Amino acid sequence: MTITAKYHVNFFDTDTMGVTHHSNYIRWFEIGRVEFLRAIGIDLNAMMADGILFPITKIEAQYHSPSYFDDILAIDTTAVALTKAKMEFEYKIHRVDEEKILVTGFSQNVFTNKETGKITRLPEKYYSLMGNG
Amino acid sequence: MTITAKYHVNFFDTDTMGVTHHSNYIRWFEIGRVEFLRAIGIDLNAMMADGILFPITKIEAQYHSPSYFDDILAIDTTAVALTKAKMEFEYKIHRVDEEKILVTGFSQNVFTNKETGKITRLPEKYYSLMGNG
Amino acid sequence: MTITAKYHVNFFDTDTMGVTHHSNYIRWFEIGRVEFLRAIGIDLNAMMADGILFPITKIEAQYHSPSYFDDILAIDTTAVALTKAKMEFEYKIHRVDEEKILVTGFSQNVFTNKETGKITRLPEKYYSLMGNG
Amino acid sequence: MTITAKYHVNFFDTDTMGVTHHSNYIRWFEIGRVEFLRAIGIDLNAMMADGILFPITKIEAQYHSPSYFDDILAIDTTAVALTKAKMEFEYKIHRVDEEKILVTGFSQNVFTNKETGKITRLPEKYYSLMGNG
Repeated sequence: MTITAKYHVNFFDTDTMGVTHHSNYIRWFEIGRVEFLRAIGIDLNAMMADGILFPITKIEAQYHSPSYFDDILAIDTTAVALTKAKMEFEYKIHRVDEEKILVTGFSQNVFTNKETGKITRLPEKYYSLMGNG
Repeated sequence: MTITAKYHVNFFDTDTMGVTHHSNYIRWFEIGRVEFLRAIGIDLNAMMADGILFPITKIEAQYHSPSYFDDILAIDTTAVALTKAKMEFEYKIHRVDEEKILVTGFSQNVFTNKETGKITRLPEKYYSLMGNG
Repeated sequence: MTITAKYHVNFFDTDTMGVTHHSNYIRWFEIGRVEFLRAIGIDLNAMMADGILFPITKIEAQYHSPSYFDDILAIDTTAVALTKAKMEFEYKIHRVDEEKILVTGFSQNVFTNKETGKITRLPEKYYSLMGNG
Repeated sequence: MTITAKYHVNFFDTDTMGVTHHSNYIRWFEIGRVEFLRAIGIDLNAMMADGILFPITKIEAQYHSPSYFDDILAIDTTAVALTKAKMEFEYKIHRVDEEKILVTGFSQNVFTNKETGKITRLPEKYYSLMGNG
């Protein structure tokens, strides 16, 4: 399953070279990831209230072509792994009306216990939803 | 008393118009404010651990002249009011080696109870330090 | 005329106090402003290509109540002044499904010549569109 | 050669999970990279004025342990490749007074012609300085 989120590029996302600053795509991967999880029924506020955090442990991004102020981007997010130990996603970012891929990426989250900060296993009530992804 | 913090402007602080994005100066006011409070002996982590938060209630900024990538800025912070109810600061931002003021600003924080979210009075142990400012 | 833009609050918009960082609303005023100008037919890329920039000269914000991760916000933008010399807007931010105002604000832009950096008058072709706002 | 830059973590760098947002380290890699280039005599403003841009083509980051508001971080930057076609750097981020590594990373920039947007070769006057790194 691939979930597509949209993002309209703002002035504050660009830099003095006239293009979107590369760090912002990492933030937009997060928009894609949260949207994906929402689509399969996972509410991250509920998960946090249950004492489970999901820190990022790895990020990779490849930048193929720039985007600009006022571009409307599509963030295509696909799950690579959704286990009780980790979530891994792949991302493809392109303009909504173009197939050409601008940025590709990968992220890995693990699950931790909010109190102890230690690695934890995802409870069944959330894990069962992962099957939707 | 005026406390001066320094900030080196990064690519990610600029925008496609070639200058620092105006929203970033609001963040740099915070750098100035935190540095000011540190200088008078106030540790914001300790204050948060004591259950006191200090949300911003007002911001004002006047932009006179732009800054650019690689500029080294001075953020001059002065206290206007430091009471048990609020903190108010004024800011002047200029290049470290120039008197010309680029941005001026004002901020107001109030104190709130972390648990209730309600307005609270600053405890004496912090208030007594405010006299240093 | 009031134009409403929407924004879904992300993790990266919040801070360690658990709420949206105050500097981000200043960025969301920009989202509102750009959306307003688009609604009356003004394309900022075209304006920049015509050698006209529109730097911010004043910002004011009053923070009444916090927003949180995953809130969906409405940014209501109204023009206060749209002349050949400046644009002034007022903003009201609230959750899309609530009337309670979280943040109010004001901004002023002036028009400058991209080459000289000096204040300029907005050309008629853009000014005539301002009447729509 | 390793060049170390410092960064004091701000409220606006943290998120609602109480730690530094992972996207910010990507920005701090840039602080490390610019500082490294400055140390070997490369002025990026001069390079841009000469019509050479240096877009990021790859980013990787591994997150081992969190940082928090008010931490003072060291960004250790080492060059992996400095050729006429690309720059590659590795990063290690730790607290200034601790050896424990919080975040490691990698970046690749290529050189492009500002006018054409095409890949270009770094001119000798800049390449000769690369030997210092």
